Amino acid sequence: VVEDGQALVDELVSLLDLESIEKDIFRGRQSEGGNHRGDVFGGLVAAQALMAAGRTVEPDRSPHSLHAYFIRRGDPSVPIVFTVDRIRDGRSFTTRRVVAIQHGQGIFALEASFQLAQPGIDSQTPMPVTAPPESFTEFEATYVDSPQGDFVRRLPFEMRQVPAIDPSAPPGSGYQWLKAKGRLPDDPLVHACALTFATDLVPARAVLDAFASGRTQESFRTASLDHAVWFHRPFRADEWLLVDAESTTASGARGLGTARMYAADGRQIATLAQEMMIRVV
Amino acid sequence: VVEDGQALVDELVSLLDLESIEKDIFRGRQSEGGNHRGDVFGGLVAAQALMAAGRTVEPDRSPHSLHAYFIRRGDPSVPIVFTVDRIRDGRSFTTRRVVAIQHGQGIFALEASFQLAQPGIDSQTPMPVTAPPESFTEFEATYVDSPQGDFVRRLPFEMRQVPAIDPSAPPGSGYQWLKAKGRLPDDPLVHACALTFATDLVPARAVLDAFASGRTQESFRTASLDHAVWFHRPFRADEWLLVDAESTTASGARGLGTARMYAADGRQIATLAQEMMIRVV
Repeated sequence: VVEDGQALVDELVSLLDLESIEKDIFRGRQSEGGNHRGDVFGGLVAAQALMAAGRTVEPDRSPHSLHAYFIRRGDPSVPIVFTVDRIRDGRSFTTRRVVAIQHGQGIFALEASFQLAQPGIDSQTPMPVTAPPESFTEFEATYVDSPQGDFVRRLPFEMRQVPAIDPSAPPGSGYQWLKAKGRLPDDPLVHACALTFATDLVPARAVLDAFASGRTQESFRTASLDHAVWFHRPFRADEWLLVDAESTTASGARGLGTARMYAADGRQIATLAQEMMIRVV
Repeated sequence: VVEDGQALVDELVSLLDLESIEKDIFRGRQSEGGNHRGDVFGGLVAAQALMAAGRTVEPDRSPHSLHAYFIRRGDPSVPIVFTVDRIRDGRSFTTRRVVAIQHGQGIFALEASFQLAQPGIDSQTPMPVTAPPESFTEFEATYVDSPQGDFVRRLPFEMRQVPAIDPSAPPGSGYQWLKAKGRLPDDPLVHACALTFATDLVPARAVLDAFASGRTQESFRTASLDHAVWFHRPFRADEWLLVDAESTTASGARGLGTARMYAADGRQIATLAQEMMIRVV
């Protein structure tokens, strides 16, 4: 399993190694088969778009936030071209916009902001207390026979679901541990992109757990509408990260999921938000 | 006070009534004096940008989310031109991008998604229990002698801070009631824009309360970096709305604030997120 895991992570790193077509134009190949529905996996598009942005930014600046919209369904059978607009190069902050293009149309648009490391107030509320990841079953085990089993097995991330201790906790809230299945190179931009890849799975899951549990897979259709990540502190995506996710509302065929992420040493490293379409068929 | 309040609200409505320059190009004047630092008020730019987007969308579609970046400092002495890019007109969703321009440069960029009203799962976690707005002092009263007093008095929104009941609650968390100081027209787009205006004040406040309380105004500088709003259900911005705000982390001269908003009848109507720059001088 360790060897397979490292191969999946190496494949993610290879997918993030975009081909340079021209200044500010990149091309990224897609993973074979796409996601569990045979679509382009949104997390990969977002990760590649962040990489395209980062390739145009001075290496002393790290991404601290991204905001993205999924605009059209992607085609996993052809590569995606990423065009970067250098919105601003400021003294402390650098802003980029990236459009992901297939068949002549934008399928995804992302804006990201990068910052030169700066000192300042460093303070946070504590990480929730939970048992270590070793105590829990691998997420894969619970999906092994489901229609998503193959997609989950091919993911370069492993997840361990923490069972809810408080039985009165709302169904969408809960903790999980998450990390890459193998070692990533040290470049912090790769870790930011890898986390972006993985986080396309996180709030979505909270939304479905909160509002679609008990419904069959066939009774509703879902799609990611947007994706926002704030990166608070340095982290490694190949070490365990605690996800504290929740979803408090669904209405009008949409549900919002949010999550806070922590390194195992307790530092809050990211906050996520994603709105999902949930259409009852 | 009621008369003054209605005049301030009427002025906001007038500021949202953008001048049409060409197809997809609008111009908005700025409020006299800008914000408390003499800058363009970010909430107004965001509200006008959402209005510009909405003016290019079929009236049967309402905004369900926006994501924006503040790119450059604005100039309150000249109007802002808003150019709208019609990213996509889909069957259910419409996507727009708006760039706010002054002196030949983009100062702010917003993407927003609009949706045709759709049935679906309607479910949420309950609104926090708190006392009604009438029980609390007007926010203005606490600011009356501060350097921000004049700006706060000129705001078309009134706020009532709910004192923390739990003394162990983190300083950035807390409730406030918020509503326009006068009546707004019935157009739901005006209410979405008005809420966008007001919400530029909300997570920012949570960040400052959490991480800058006890510091003097002169010891740090702040600016809004981004702004995201998800609109979950219909609402009126001229009726009391409960804000449940928190800020759990500040680091690297940045702090993130988030908030959930509820109508007085308990429906969750919006979720907000905003990252602030907090630079210690």
